[in-house]
Amino acid sequence: MKAEIIAVGTELLLGQIVNSNAQFLSQELATMGIDVYFQTVVGDNMSRLQESLELARQRADIIILTGGIGPTQDDLTKDALAALLSRTLHIDRLAMEHVDNFFVQRGIHMTENNRRQALVIEGSTPLANSTGLAVGNAISHEGKYYIVLPGPPKEMKPMFQDEAKRWLLQHALTNEMPIYSTMLKFAGIGESALEERLLDLINNQNDPTIAPYAKEGEVTVRISTKAPSKKEAMIKLDALEAQIQALLPDHLYASEDVPIEKAIVDLLTDRGLTFSAAESCTGGLLMERITSVPGSATVFLGGIVCYSNQLKEKLLNVPHDLLEGEDAPGAVSAEVAEVLAEQVRMIGDTDFGLSITGVAGPAYSERKPVGLVYVAIAQRGKKTEVHELNLNGNRDSIRHRTVKSLLYRLWRTIVLSEQLS
Amino acid sequence: MKAEIIAVGTELLLGQIVNSNAQFLSQELATMGIDVYFQTVVGDNMSRLQESLELARQRADIIILTGGIGPTQDDLTKDALAALLSRTLHIDRLAMEHVDNFFVQRGIHMTENNRRQALVIEGSTPLANSTGLAVGNAISHEGKYYIVLPGPPKEMKPMFQDEAKRWLLQHALTNEMPIYSTMLKFAGIGESALEERLLDLINNQNDPTIAPYAKEGEVTVRISTKAPSKKEAMIKLDALEAQIQALLPDHLYASEDVPIEKAIVDLLTDRGLTFSAAESCTGGLLMERITSVPGSATVFLGGIVCYSNQLKEKLLNVPHDLLEGEDAPGAVSAEVAEVLAEQVRMIGDTDFGLSITGVAGPAYSERKPVGLVYVAIAQRGKKTEVHELNLNGNRDSIRHRTVKSLLYRLWRTIVLSEQLS
Repeated sequence: MKAEIIAVGTELLLGQIVNSNAQFLSQELATMGIDVYFQTVVGDNMSRLQESLELARQRADIIILTGGIGPTQDDLTKDALAALLSRTLHIDRLAMEHVDNFFVQRGIHMTENNRRQALVIEGSTPLANSTGLAVGNAISHEGKYYIVLPGPPKEMKPMFQDEAKRWLLQHALTNEMPIYSTMLKFAGIGESALEERLLDLINNQNDPTIAPYAKEGEVTVRISTKAPSKKEAMIKLDALEAQIQALLPDHLYASEDVPIEKAIVDLLTDRGLTFSAAESCTGGLLMERITSVPGSATVFLGGIVCYSNQLKEKLLNVPHDLLEGEDAPGAVSAEVAEVLAEQVRMIGDTDFGLSITGVAGPAYSERKPVGLVYVAIAQRGKKTEVHELNLNGNRDSIRHRTVKSLLYRLWRTIVLSEQLS
Repeated sequence: MKAEIIAVGTELLLGQIVNSNAQFLSQELATMGIDVYFQTVVGDNMSRLQESLELARQRADIIILTGGIGPTQDDLTKDALAALLSRTLHIDRLAMEHVDNFFVQRGIHMTENNRRQALVIEGSTPLANSTGLAVGNAISHEGKYYIVLPGPPKEMKPMFQDEAKRWLLQHALTNEMPIYSTMLKFAGIGESALEERLLDLINNQNDPTIAPYAKEGEVTVRISTKAPSKKEAMIKLDALEAQIQALLPDHLYASEDVPIEKAIVDLLTDRGLTFSAAESCTGGLLMERITSVPGSATVFLGGIVCYSNQLKEKLLNVPHDLLEGEDAPGAVSAEVAEVLAEQVRMIGDTDFGLSITGVAGPAYSERKPVGLVYVAIAQRGKKTEVHELNLNGNRDSIRHRTVKSLLYRLWRTIVLSEQLS
């Protein structure tokens, strides 16, 4: 099966946004064993959209379209596909209800153009939009398979995962041996160091395949195999996972595609432990990441964003002498990180207290360079650990890598203390 | 002039990397007044690459290729283009010296395949690579203009800026006027409602053009015009901006492409005002967004993530009776939002205190549905405003839309109070 991805939207051709949809869909299709031969981007223009569709139909079996299904006059994707297939469009009853409800619940007047978001092509399967309004479409026609998805990634991704993938498996991929994968997630190690540790394994085996890739301070290794049943696949995948685990015991934190914050929440939930946090330069990013995990309320009580020295003193009892004065270590110091972690742990009466203080930039002082960050972990009845980080990158990347690094250290602290005891 | 961008590389089709080159080139071409009608991605495959080139030659005047000019056997871009134009390839003397020097300076033996990186098409202009080894190419042939650039962005970008742009201006764009744009940013209004308000304007004028699009809870409108000089362009753009401003005075928060958190930081900095925040269901997201803006420390002191009721009582003095008990309004209520905003404002001694408490889901109680959120703004010496939001979507989208909504209300509160006084 050969696929082509067509992203529709003048904003892509103007460079206002990057085509992350094509990347996401390419990754997904690769894991399904479908080869992507072309990605195309075309503007909100009927004749060029039809030209792209005609071409895709000639050279691919599966055509996936994203974008151009919103309420406005220049959202033309469904019209163009309907024309190509010589079919009509009609309002889908359920999709229209979904749009209506949206406006009724908000007490907003629905403008007429919003009805366009409930349009489906005659004979197609509507794909529900759980995070937005415009309904998607899936249709097979003369041996070709067409999928129409929304443009915004937060609508496109769940619609592909929850709706389009199943439709493809049921309609287009009925004869293929399915691919099964396990995602192994690593923290506290870079992609090239990890690859070096796995080099013998990677070079000496073809099934399951081993594919490492790095993303936002985490490394993922996808191991995949084709098999007639999930059971047979899992025997091969589990054996390889055990080999990898033995080579990287300190870094493998999950056997599914979850961020480390999810692994932390699970780890603490299992053990009935709690934590709280005090953040300065990350401004709440760690707490935001933790609370993005459903169910985090069981283990995470809350904390303090002590962005100013004033709040460090007032809410976290940091001695004024540590923060200001000629010989004071200053807000960005191991001493202050230690007090912040211990104080927030006591305020929250939690098992762990985490803290972050550092220079995320671009502003800096002469004594403290951009990228210098202290993180600390206070534990009930134990000595507080403080770590100094020296990070490269811009403000955003320093903040994100600080949070990943501290969460990794918390994970390791818990796991190692159990191995020792 | 119409352009097409062809990115060559199987890693793009596998989704291993995102096509940021296409975004960069599209932006650059737009500012040069060149319309990009298609972006294509094709793998390292000779026949499909030739097919893409043939098609691009039929539908575009300028064809920009990136990738596939490295040393390995699957780097085929120059071979494919030479074949299309029926020209030969030869080693460029200066480019070969550049490659040789690289290896000599590092004392590494140069393998034979590295010579491929110095290949140029007969009759082309070599484009020097200041940050890598492979030489680029520019060539005009039968009224079409071809540019060959490397794949790695750190080589492609400087080669485009320093070499290709000048070549295009000298060869292809001798008669064109440049395009100038202004980005207008709106909050507190959806894309379709905004478009309806601007419909007459959009329908009745072609210069400047008006292009709305939505992204993550914000709406952007780009207005663009071609003009011989920036001064003449700005006269037209400023006049249109004033018309749009008059139609949407409550929603236009910036005349440049910045998120609302940046507009808030600027607004408060100008006025010497400060704020603090108390967040429950958003877990620190608002504070994280604010502190992502460099310089936010002047206006933002910090705040409290009161995820648990325990911390709401202990740190923010929320009366126990409001939180628990049969007739208590509960943590997710207008009453609690009000106390949180007022208390955090007093603790921080700031001009404004913001608060958020709600049900982000997926868990919910019988009395409080997912998506019910209360946000409040306390002001020194004024009555606290509390708003009830009823949001759809998943946990992530409810949290993000809550934050955007509260920031919009803060912006509006400040701007409106000045209009009234």
